[in-house]
Amino acid sequence: MGDLRVIEVKRSIFEDNNRDADRLRDQLRRENTLLINLMSSPGAGKTTLLRRTIALIRDEMKLGVMEADIDGEVDARAIEAAGAKAVQIHTGGMCHLDADMTRQGLAALGSEAFDLVVLENVGNLVCPAEFDTGAMRNVMLLSVPEGDDKPLKYPLMFKNCQVALINKCDTLAVFDDFDCERVKARILDRNPTCRVFFISAKTGEGFEAWTDWLREALSQFRGGKLDAPVHFDA
Amino acid sequence: MGDLRVIEVKRSIFEDNNRDADRLRDQLRRENTLLINLMSSPGAGKTTLLRRTIALIRDEMKLGVMEADIDGEVDARAIEAAGAKAVQIHTGGMCHLDADMTRQGLAALGSEAFDLVVLENVGNLVCPAEFDTGAMRNVMLLSVPEGDDKPLKYPLMFKNCQVALINKCDTLAVFDDFDCERVKARILDRNPTCRVFFISAKTGEGFEAWTDWLREALSQFRGGKLDAPVHFDA
Repeated sequence: MGDLRVIEVKRSIFEDNNRDADRLRDQLRRENTLLINLMSSPGAGKTTLLRRTIALIRDEMKLGVMEADIDGEVDARAIEAAGAKAVQIHTGGMCHLDADMTRQGLAALGSEAFDLVVLENVGNLVCPAEFDTGAMRNVMLLSVPEGDDKPLKYPLMFKNCQVALINKCDTLAVFDDFDCERVKARILDRNPTCRVFFISAKTGEGFEAWTDWLREALSQFRGGKLDAPVHFDA
Repeated sequence: MGDLRVIEVKRSIFEDNNRDADRLRDQLRRENTLLINLMSSPGAGKTTLLRRTIALIRDEMKLGVMEADIDGEVDARAIEAAGAKAVQIHTGGMCHLDADMTRQGLAALGSEAFDLVVLENVGNLVCPAEFDTGAMRNVMLLSVPEGDDKPLKYPLMFKNCQVALINKCDTLAVFDDFDCERVKARILDRNPTCRVFFISAKTGEGFEAWTDWLREALSQFRGGKLDAPVHFDA
């Protein structure tokens, strides 16, 4: 296959998907439901993050979670046990979610009944960054064991998120070549307005700032003051 | 876009690529160059693995490395410093390498001059597993901090590898919910003939068994006794 043909196919898929994502955002505004898209590498701690977050905010807002995985259902069960409604989306081998798959998940969950729905995307730093899911905010999670060079290697992911959570900070003594100031500078170099929070989903470190950000985003969304995310070229 | 159309595009891409990969394997057999495809999540330790491996075997065989990344060139520089020739392949946003991109990398490296060439694929547990690169052996690296549930969530990656290296075993005391016997059983459940080695690229633990496997694979390849890997449906 020639390079040119592949690029054309990719471009038309992205354009179709961007339009579809904008329609989904309109629907979610009518439903008054804030959708957040959570992305990371495999094993960075998305589900553990969500379980602790749910425990901290479930008395303040109605929460739903969509767990996207190639296969398996361990995550959806863990989320239900933490006290939020969850649906499991099997992508059938797909490496990311697009707006249409997200719409199907929201319908299965019954999104109009929730204040906040979090989409836990497929564990992957590449493809999910290319596809707008229709979320109002993209949050990415980078874990300390992955290394502080990831913003250099996966630039689109760090450009397309509004929040970067640096997780597993309780292991900084073990992974002593990870430099917190350096990773923050590398993220801000790609994306100057990104909010960067240092957390540990295991110990709870840093969760006050993160959940405050969530509360503020929900308040802005309800006041009609949350802009749609910008589309970057994939 | 309808689901059916996407699936058809995907299938024709895979079939074209599988044929292309078989042609590349024929070329490499003529050159007497063993190509190994190394895959993992971002930050699992592929480059650190290669640096230590190079130090252990560089006196026994001529080694080349192709570093595939979305962006950046830190890995190729690190490999050159360790004493092997390296080329950096920028995928331009692509989440995996296919056989054609691999062929371009081999040409740039001058593959006929090497006994063993390792392709360090893009950090991603999903897409690289779907595309045959033309390698004779697929090696995947899973790091302890990622968790022992990954074979359940990324089945194709674990089906398509002949070796699974469990890395960062020096951190098992910190990540004490990672169960070595459980992860091995989950891998063998997907792929009964997979070789599983427990290593630490940081400390060198387990490298004797891993480099012995490499030596044996090279010896089998030279004797014409290494079969091509099986294509699994993506």
